[in-house]
Amino acid sequence: MNNQSKFTLSPDRFFGPDPRQKEIAQHLYNRVAGLPLVCPHGHVDPRMFADPDYSFGSPADLLIIPDHYVFRMLYSQGVPLEALGVPRRDSGPVESDHRKIWQTFADHFYLFRGTPTGIWLAQELTEVFGITEKLNSASAMRIYDQIADCLTRPEFRPRALFERFKIEVLATTDAAADPLRHHQAIRASGWSGRVVPTFRPDAVVNLDAPGWHQNIEALSEASGIEVNSYRALIAALENRRAFFKQMGATATDHAALTPATGELSTAETEAIFSRALKGQATAEDAARFTGHMLMEMARMSIEDGLVMQLHPGSFRNHNPEVFARHGLDKGADIPIQTEFTRNLKPLLDKYGRDPRLTLILFTLDETTYSRELAPLAGHYPALRLGPPWWFHDSLNGMARYFDQVIETAGLYNTAGFNDDTRAFPSIPARHDVWRRAASNWLAGLVVRGIVDLEDAEEMAFDAAYGLAKKAYRL
Amino acid sequence: MNNQSKFTLSPDRFFGPDPRQKEIAQHLYNRVAGLPLVCPHGHVDPRMFADPDYSFGSPADLLIIPDHYVFRMLYSQGVPLEALGVPRRDSGPVESDHRKIWQTFADHFYLFRGTPTGIWLAQELTEVFGITEKLNSASAMRIYDQIADCLTRPEFRPRALFERFKIEVLATTDAAADPLRHHQAIRASGWSGRVVPTFRPDAVVNLDAPGWHQNIEALSEASGIEVNSYRALIAALENRRAFFKQMGATATDHAALTPATGELSTAETEAIFSRALKGQATAEDAARFTGHMLMEMARMSIEDGLVMQLHPGSFRNHNPEVFARHGLDKGADIPIQTEFTRNLKPLLDKYGRDPRLTLILFTLDETTYSRELAPLAGHYPALRLGPPWWFHDSLNGMARYFDQVIETAGLYNTAGFNDDTRAFPSIPARHDVWRRAASNWLAGLVVRGIVDLEDAEEMAFDAAYGLAKKAYRL
Amino acid sequence: MNNQSKFTLSPDRFFGPDPRQKEIAQHLYNRVAGLPLVCPHGHVDPRMFADPDYSFGSPADLLIIPDHYVFRMLYSQGVPLEALGVPRRDSGPVESDHRKIWQTFADHFYLFRGTPTGIWLAQELTEVFGITEKLNSASAMRIYDQIADCLTRPEFRPRALFERFKIEVLATTDAAADPLRHHQAIRASGWSGRVVPTFRPDAVVNLDAPGWHQNIEALSEASGIEVNSYRALIAALENRRAFFKQMGATATDHAALTPATGELSTAETEAIFSRALKGQATAEDAARFTGHMLMEMARMSIEDGLVMQLHPGSFRNHNPEVFARHGLDKGADIPIQTEFTRNLKPLLDKYGRDPRLTLILFTLDETTYSRELAPLAGHYPALRLGPPWWFHDSLNGMARYFDQVIETAGLYNTAGFNDDTRAFPSIPARHDVWRRAASNWLAGLVVRGIVDLEDAEEMAFDAAYGLAKKAYRL
Repeated sequence: MNNQSKFTLSPDRFFGPDPRQKEIAQHLYNRVAGLPLVCPHGHVDPRMFADPDYSFGSPADLLIIPDHYVFRMLYSQGVPLEALGVPRRDSGPVESDHRKIWQTFADHFYLFRGTPTGIWLAQELTEVFGITEKLNSASAMRIYDQIADCLTRPEFRPRALFERFKIEVLATTDAAADPLRHHQAIRASGWSGRVVPTFRPDAVVNLDAPGWHQNIEALSEASGIEVNSYRALIAALENRRAFFKQMGATATDHAALTPATGELSTAETEAIFSRALKGQATAEDAARFTGHMLMEMARMSIEDGLVMQLHPGSFRNHNPEVFARHGLDKGADIPIQTEFTRNLKPLLDKYGRDPRLTLILFTLDETTYSRELAPLAGHYPALRLGPPWWFHDSLNGMARYFDQVIETAGLYNTAGFNDDTRAFPSIPARHDVWRRAASNWLAGLVVRGIVDLEDAEEMAFDAAYGLAKKAYRL
Repeated sequence: MNNQSKFTLSPDRFFGPDPRQKEIAQHLYNRVAGLPLVCPHGHVDPRMFADPDYSFGSPADLLIIPDHYVFRMLYSQGVPLEALGVPRRDSGPVESDHRKIWQTFADHFYLFRGTPTGIWLAQELTEVFGITEKLNSASAMRIYDQIADCLTRPEFRPRALFERFKIEVLATTDAAADPLRHHQAIRASGWSGRVVPTFRPDAVVNLDAPGWHQNIEALSEASGIEVNSYRALIAALENRRAFFKQMGATATDHAALTPATGELSTAETEAIFSRALKGQATAEDAARFTGHMLMEMARMSIEDGLVMQLHPGSFRNHNPEVFARHGLDKGADIPIQTEFTRNLKPLLDKYGRDPRLTLILFTLDETTYSRELAPLAGHYPALRLGPPWWFHDSLNGMARYFDQVIETAGLYNTAGFNDDTRAFPSIPARHDVWRRAASNWLAGLVVRGIVDLEDAEEMAFDAAYGLAKKAYRL
Repeated sequence: MNNQSKFTLSPDRFFGPDPRQKEIAQHLYNRVAGLPLVCPHGHVDPRMFADPDYSFGSPADLLIIPDHYVFRMLYSQGVPLEALGVPRRDSGPVESDHRKIWQTFADHFYLFRGTPTGIWLAQELTEVFGITEKLNSASAMRIYDQIADCLTRPEFRPRALFERFKIEVLATTDAAADPLRHHQAIRASGWSGRVVPTFRPDAVVNLDAPGWHQNIEALSEASGIEVNSYRALIAALENRRAFFKQMGATATDHAALTPATGELSTAETEAIFSRALKGQATAEDAARFTGHMLMEMARMSIEDGLVMQLHPGSFRNHNPEVFARHGLDKGADIPIQTEFTRNLKPLLDKYGRDPRLTLILFTLDETTYSRELAPLAGHYPALRLGPPWWFHDSLNGMARYFDQVIETAGLYNTAGFNDDTRAFPSIPARHDVWRRAASNWLAGLVVRGIVDLEDAEEMAFDAAYGLAKKAYRL
């Protein structure tokens, strides 16, 4: 291994090798590469924009410790999360020497060869921090120093990067009970960046969510409505949606183990909610309640115009020891088979034709692309398909998505791209991968005579920018 | 947008971009492009060939109103089916100005970019009707006029197009009780075109089929056997099969929600049938009866030599409002997960080794290609795999089929292509897409040294023509 | 057809057509083509190395009669297994003229166009036996004679081929009760070839295995422990594992219909085992017992260091007549849908973080690659993914594997390649296909700027050689 390997990003990276296809891909990409970034779904902490002097901390704070895409790979090869500085819930000791954490990361960076995380990091290091050598054991400390130096400078404050990245709008994801203080502070500060919340009520509508009772209490407090009944829950949620909307939200977001939907009677919902308050709700209660609440959320979306997003199919906290020790979102969420055709039918029967509703669907089960989601989105006026999600937010994931979705759903029943990330400085890299992947896909259509260049140019613009803006009503 | 964009079909369309692969693909395609069309499965109305002066009506009558591939896409973007002239069951008002329908269609034609429907329509307009400009809002009326003008001319009568398209044989799909009057008229007319019926008894063997009682009455009438028992049903079906065979049929066709098969005792079948006659059959009764009848159909196929086709996995009439308002086949049929390995076992245990049986399987669940269907077809002598079906009758669908089926099943356990269409003038385009896709796939094998050119030439012929003819005993 | 077609293998076969990608693929391939073959999982009969004068018999004995990959394809087109000399359990007559068998095979060799079996056979004929013409009806007898002539010569004895093939280590698969006499003879002979056993206890831990009672008796005899209780079973298995390990084994292998795992109480295991001894175990008993024993096998692996392999998802002996007539492994094993996320959870909860365990997973359900297996292997330290298995050990199967697994799991959570074959002379061809497919995949990454050439070179080495050696602790 050459320890001081020079590293550069190829300007035609990710395009197929055929010269004519590559030329068309490059042409399409050049037209969209500089478009502003529309980020309608993600997990960036709004705190970083509320405080104009917010600092990202060390390179490990920025790029390793909070990023479950990164540390799960090292964990899979036997590196304890503690050695990467991932905090423990019991405040037990974890590595605090961030240089040491970075060295461990660099020693294992070869694990990311051929992965989207590897691609994002490489592009981030190069384009955000100006690194010009390859990250490995030998270069680790030089690169650490260079990033650490950047992070001390004003032009690496979050607001400065937001502007440098040309972000037109950034949506965060926020609990129903969240007072949105950071969003309020951003608005109050007079800064022109558009950072909007997204209403995510999972923690109160999924009765089996960790800490459900506290979540309900927080909701009562935030809404000023004592949530002691199903009816009060609905009122509190409507109250919070109105507040989120007033704070700029255009969408809601919902996770569920399955996309099962189905309306319950008021008596049933009250009985289940009452059992939940007493800590007596069963798993069956929770599943049926979630299915009912998805219907209610669609009903509210029709009334208040918030776009509804649904992300089913992730088995959360699969590794109980990691969950117990490090908490939520630590990378042990594993996909499961997902069924949409029958599960969504009650919701679609009632609301699928309503022109006021936009329901954006995501999946971790790619078999549903061509079998269920594209046919559904190619029929129901209310449906749009979100971009390839999570593990599938990758070059191959995008290629499979384009190949399996578009022929049946058409491009115009999709919702463009979103980066779904908490890793703020990776946002440009993620959009760039999508824009390149879309340009390459479209070039493949042009070169095979399936669409002409004029259509491909419009499609490239829509995929990169127009569709997300339209689907999310931004 | 250039409103008068010239439109031409690229002669090397759908081939991969590599020059050597493209050259081989073109060579293979040139050898098969002019072969007659074998159309062993489809839904063209035989009426159009029974009357030598049959007219297609307006361009909207021909290309929009009856084609659920077309109108579902506009519906998915909020265009009511009424605005496209799709008739209502209650005879309520729908748009009757066919120019206006055509304009709406043209305004939304961009939705079909990158879809097979877009490809078929473009090729149909160009090659059947001689259109040379791109369909869009501006060109809509010029193109309407040009097609309308064509449709008045004798060379655009169905029989003339049948000959121009070089159709060697066209199979229609016909209910068990259908008297086949149009087929009789075609035969009586002395016209040389070969149009044969296909026996499709779903409406009487699926107890939960809409209008089942009337269907049974019609079957009684058609067969002259009063279908008041299971035994009488079997006799009536055997009677009708004999009649269909006499009228030229070589195949039967069966839809089912799942491919579950399993033999019931005579007592059970009589009991279920008796409950059905009284309107008391349960969903479970219907499912078990269908599974039994598939076994019976295989038994009859062994006896009378009709090739059996099975198309499971479509959840019919998913959108109840569209179904209630517009009826069957209006585009709200959505695929579901399908299981073949266990479901087909009873049938294969009994008949899978019988050299007299050919059972052609179709799927809407592509995950079954490599996992179940190819291994099954690569083992059981009675099985053949039909081409990619419905949503998967597309360039990517074909590529996935070739990639996922052939390595395990071999080409010779497939049944070639069929167009499965009710849109008669799209038939040449559909076969052309297949022939190009197959040529391109084979060129990929040649250029990578997997098969030699001599083998590829034979395979191209078989895929384009030989296999369908052989599998359907035509 | 040219009956004396010259046949040569293209030196750049299986590489994509783009000239630059092909050049890189060739470069990577050249670096790994000559590496020794590591064969950690397969079904070669150890007898052939125990006897230095072992002869393969006739070309049909070698290439057709024992190879269910071959004869199933001819069977699927109506050729009876008897006509191919496949022995009957009842010793009924089968074709005994091996020239006639070979002729039948050659007459149908076109069925293998585009299949991996066709590729392996072509390469085997060319590179092992020096055949230079294409196999077809006309060339059949010439080729038969040439192979038959080879097989009489000392350089075609198994040990000579083992050395010629540069096999570094070959693992066989052996029943728990197997006395490993051939392995003992190999060791005693002083021959330097490394042939090691693999511990496969399916026949005793799956209560519904054919001949279970006799298998238990054999286990009692082999272990010297009377297996009359669950506790005795565990002791006997531990005894045998120790013996296998002493004989060079580094791994165990486990088939199961599903990957369901779950620990039972000792009382339950004893009760189930006692029912099984009395012939009273239910299907439910067998399923739960297998799930429990998988946990036990993981526990033992942690203790003795044997790598654990799990191959679920094959419905064995699907065709009852073929099974009754010809026995196990005659090609009627058909894949089923498989679920890992929930099924493996009990095992992973208990052992998935243990650094002493390596559990290598295989699947016949490719939908699990991106949905379940890659996320699981990309998280749990104990997991590695085996190569594409059985029907998917093919060029397209490998391409799908690389595309669907690596982005999420990374290359370093995979276990490289194994050939899984009983067809000894096909081993070099199988590894060659993998090495070419991997080189082509990596060249695709390089040419698209996803990894650099330096990384690709290391990855090619690891895929071809390093990963298998490491995962199997060889």
